[in-house]
Amino acid sequence: MKYCAQCGGKVELKVPDGDNRPRHVCMDCGRIHYLNPRLIVGTLPVWQDKVLLCRRAIEPRQGYWTLPAGFMENGESAADGAQRETLEEACARVRVLDPYTLVSVPFIDQLHLLFRAELLDLDFAPGPESLEVRLFDEADIPWNELAFRSVTLTLRAFFDERRSGRFGVHHISLPPIER
Amino acid sequence: MKYCAQCGGKVELKVPDGDNRPRHVCMDCGRIHYLNPRLIVGTLPVWQDKVLLCRRAIEPRQGYWTLPAGFMENGESAADGAQRETLEEACARVRVLDPYTLVSVPFIDQLHLLFRAELLDLDFAPGPESLEVRLFDEADIPWNELAFRSVTLTLRAFFDERRSGRFGVHHISLPPIER
Repeated sequence: MKYCAQCGGKVELKVPDGDNRPRHVCMDCGRIHYLNPRLIVGTLPVWQDKVLLCRRAIEPRQGYWTLPAGFMENGESAADGAQRETLEEACARVRVLDPYTLVSVPFIDQLHLLFRAELLDLDFAPGPESLEVRLFDEADIPWNELAFRSVTLTLRAFFDERRSGRFGVHHISLPPIER
Repeated sequence: MKYCAQCGGKVELKVPDGDNRPRHVCMDCGRIHYLNPRLIVGTLPVWQDKVLLCRRAIEPRQGYWTLPAGFMENGESAADGAQRETLEEACARVRVLDPYTLVSVPFIDQLHLLFRAELLDLDFAPGPESLEVRLFDEADIPWNELAFRSVTLTLRAFFDERRSGRFGVHHISLPPIER
């Protein structure tokens, strides 16, 4: 950030009075511009014994399989955002159930929030950001072709827990991937 | 938003190609500036039969009681942010347990995420944003002097559920307050 979105003045990094970390502060109007983590919301859509996955048509991780999810928008609830992303990426209608996994990804300033969901019908299809949308049995999950670690751990938790029929809520913070 | 934070050019609201809602787009460099909901993270600190509340020294809702919470920062996990806010507002050390309430507040573009937490010792004290920090029994909770609806519903859920000893996860979206 170099310029003030409010007045167009030059912005510098400094610690404001009463604060304890550097912020982008406008040298002209004094406005403080805070940068905060962004929320990714999505669903784990379930139909009988199967779960719905989307193969990504876009980067990052083009060609890999993911759960339908995307940036939460202003003016919507987390559950509404998760439902909207499921409709946009998989053209799928779901009933959103409870929050299931909450995955912090601090090195890219993201928080992923995935809800369990009930797929309402089989009229799904790839949206513009998906190449393919399919239902998978546990045995067929393409574990080595999943797009993101938050997807992998959500699917693992789900298949572990559904044997008991009792679902918890899972939170974890991911370290950077070492290559 | 009037100016581009990247180049200082004029920004206008328009729907970018491939998008479906208006965004702030720079007329000079073409950059799209997305605005997304902000996350408030905090804890419900529990000590034996009591819970810890803070009386707010700042607006909004100065003088009212709240759970320790605040804006999640870039570079931290949700649980770390909740723990940090508890330390800043109540000078209290906690062990963060599971996510407990997830409250969307779409009309102000916020998502509140509160974790249950175990208070580790009794050396708490008001931080700069608190007037007073106290432990409350259920019978003494100042229900009419709570700062935010997300605090009220978190406390109600907690006292309801602790009788059974089994805590779920709660998500809700709040409508605007009608005055």
